[in-house]
Amino acid sequence: MEASENLQVTMARHPAGWVEESDFALVRTPLPRPGPGQMLVRMRYLSLDPYMRGHMNPGKSYAAGIGPGDVMPGGTVSEVIASDLAKFPVGTMVLGMFGWQSHALSDGKGVQRVDPGVPLSLHLGALGMPGVTAHVGLLDIGKPRPGETVVVSAASGAVGGVVGQIAKLKGARAVGIAGGAEKCRIVREEYGFDACVDYKAADFYAQLRAATPDGVDVYFENVGGEVLDQVLRRINVGARIPLCGLISEYNTETPHGARNLRSLLVNRATITGFIVSDHLDRWPAALADLTAWWRAGKLKAREDVVEGLEHAPSAFIGLLKGANKGKLVVKVA
Amino acid sequence: MEASENLQVTMARHPAGWVEESDFALVRTPLPRPGPGQMLVRMRYLSLDPYMRGHMNPGKSYAAGIGPGDVMPGGTVSEVIASDLAKFPVGTMVLGMFGWQSHALSDGKGVQRVDPGVPLSLHLGALGMPGVTAHVGLLDIGKPRPGETVVVSAASGAVGGVVGQIAKLKGARAVGIAGGAEKCRIVREEYGFDACVDYKAADFYAQLRAATPDGVDVYFENVGGEVLDQVLRRINVGARIPLCGLISEYNTETPHGARNLRSLLVNRATITGFIVSDHLDRWPAALADLTAWWRAGKLKAREDVVEGLEHAPSAFIGLLKGANKGKLVVKVA
Repeated sequence: MEASENLQVTMARHPAGWVEESDFALVRTPLPRPGPGQMLVRMRYLSLDPYMRGHMNPGKSYAAGIGPGDVMPGGTVSEVIASDLAKFPVGTMVLGMFGWQSHALSDGKGVQRVDPGVPLSLHLGALGMPGVTAHVGLLDIGKPRPGETVVVSAASGAVGGVVGQIAKLKGARAVGIAGGAEKCRIVREEYGFDACVDYKAADFYAQLRAATPDGVDVYFENVGGEVLDQVLRRINVGARIPLCGLISEYNTETPHGARNLRSLLVNRATITGFIVSDHLDRWPAALADLTAWWRAGKLKAREDVVEGLEHAPSAFIGLLKGANKGKLVVKVA
Repeated sequence: MEASENLQVTMARHPAGWVEESDFALVRTPLPRPGPGQMLVRMRYLSLDPYMRGHMNPGKSYAAGIGPGDVMPGGTVSEVIASDLAKFPVGTMVLGMFGWQSHALSDGKGVQRVDPGVPLSLHLGALGMPGVTAHVGLLDIGKPRPGETVVVSAASGAVGGVVGQIAKLKGARAVGIAGGAEKCRIVREEYGFDACVDYKAADFYAQLRAATPDGVDVYFENVGGEVLDQVLRRINVGARIPLCGLISEYNTETPHGARNLRSLLVNRATITGFIVSDHLDRWPAALADLTAWWRAGKLKAREDVVEGLEHAPSAFIGLLKGANKGKLVVKVA
């Protein structure tokens, strides 16, 4: 059965603070037909990631923002269903940035075949962009040494869960920060971190201190805000802080001010903002590591799968509020 | 004429917020006599620097803090007036960390002869620790390239003034931030910066924007607080921020929170806290550069000289409030 329409989720307007469902629109357009040198793909999985919130802002973000009426951007795993490209025959599974829609035309640029021996959705998570983000940020920027303590926030998230597992594989102590007992259980029991601290707990700092008796050598930051300030109190001399995300600040126009920057000075520490797309040269080696670890059972990947593209907006809103307990993907078809 | 007493300035108590004169005490003790393997030095110049504020806190700073009754620490240029050390005969001029006192005993460890061809006090400023701090922080951490824009806060200070001059020598555009029209004049006219912005002006950000039409590639930070937040709005992709000091936060227990850290992420920028004492290996080469530039007339050094050790407390308090217009030194004898 083949659809006759392309279902798209567009941004209806720039959000003000927290994203709402009414910031999106569901649009149906005629299914495009591939011309010479083109292929038509049907989305199987769409990745939902915090960075997408940045694209929805009118101001400067990683990339040119999108405007009202534009299809929401996003990574996808798709199946080629019609093709004039020898490299991508019908039936090929491909990784691309086709966004929140059921179908797309492509000339094949920026599109990659995916390893068919791996579950499709993993190419959007632990064996995809989030996994490579964890690998590059932790190993190239954080540079943990055996015996050091690595702390990661949003530890049950798509990136954070991989960060802690790589830290363990490299001989470091891994401490997660996550919201709530169930996420902390996942972080400890499923991902094998040495400890996990609930940032929503009244005694968060006391818990953090107890979990980091030797201080913090690497802090992989996904969250920012109050959590950053508390971790800054625990960093050691020479600490490295790969800055991957600041999800606590994405939905507010009045961010929490970081009060403990003096700790960077006293401890001669470094904060380095990074974006995985600046490190494309590192992608193949990182992916090879991740895939080998996954095949050997040393890298666990947990997913939250939402069925149906029409539910992408509510799932994305939940992601920004911390509702997911694993890598969030939408099963499109 | 030789004194029979050692005049010392001690910390009477840990300051609460702003330092007050009553936080210090003047103490006279008998002049010590050097034993075997010792020398007695008489202080000629004492350096007053913002970092000393950190030592006065009860908590963790760069070094073990001092307690009530301890002599205030500080760099000094001294004359050997009695000696059992062949390496330091009477009359030798030496650089040491003898603190806020008129005399001191030493076994010679950590003490260096100074170049007698340079005015003594310069060994405490542009050709001493502040100059090396500027050199290491700018060139090793900031790494400006020709044509890039370097911004430095506290630009009329002992470190900041050198930072901008080195930036110019390396072909970068140098923009200072200082408090008030007179300091900005010094920065532009005496130190030769391309521009200087008054952070006390109501239109500070507009001035900063106008002075950095191509954005900011390197921000050498001495100040923190609101100034940091405003400069973060101007940084370019890949900006480097050597974090040398946070003088705006040294005298408050409720620091301004940095609200614009997201700019580090968006621009993949790096903040690196550093302390010059971690880079002793770089000291000789840095000092050789600085001395050569000074001899060639390419490095200007302005000093505020206070006469008499008993005025060190009030001069230090003025330094923390931004009263000085050059490297602050006390002429002890």
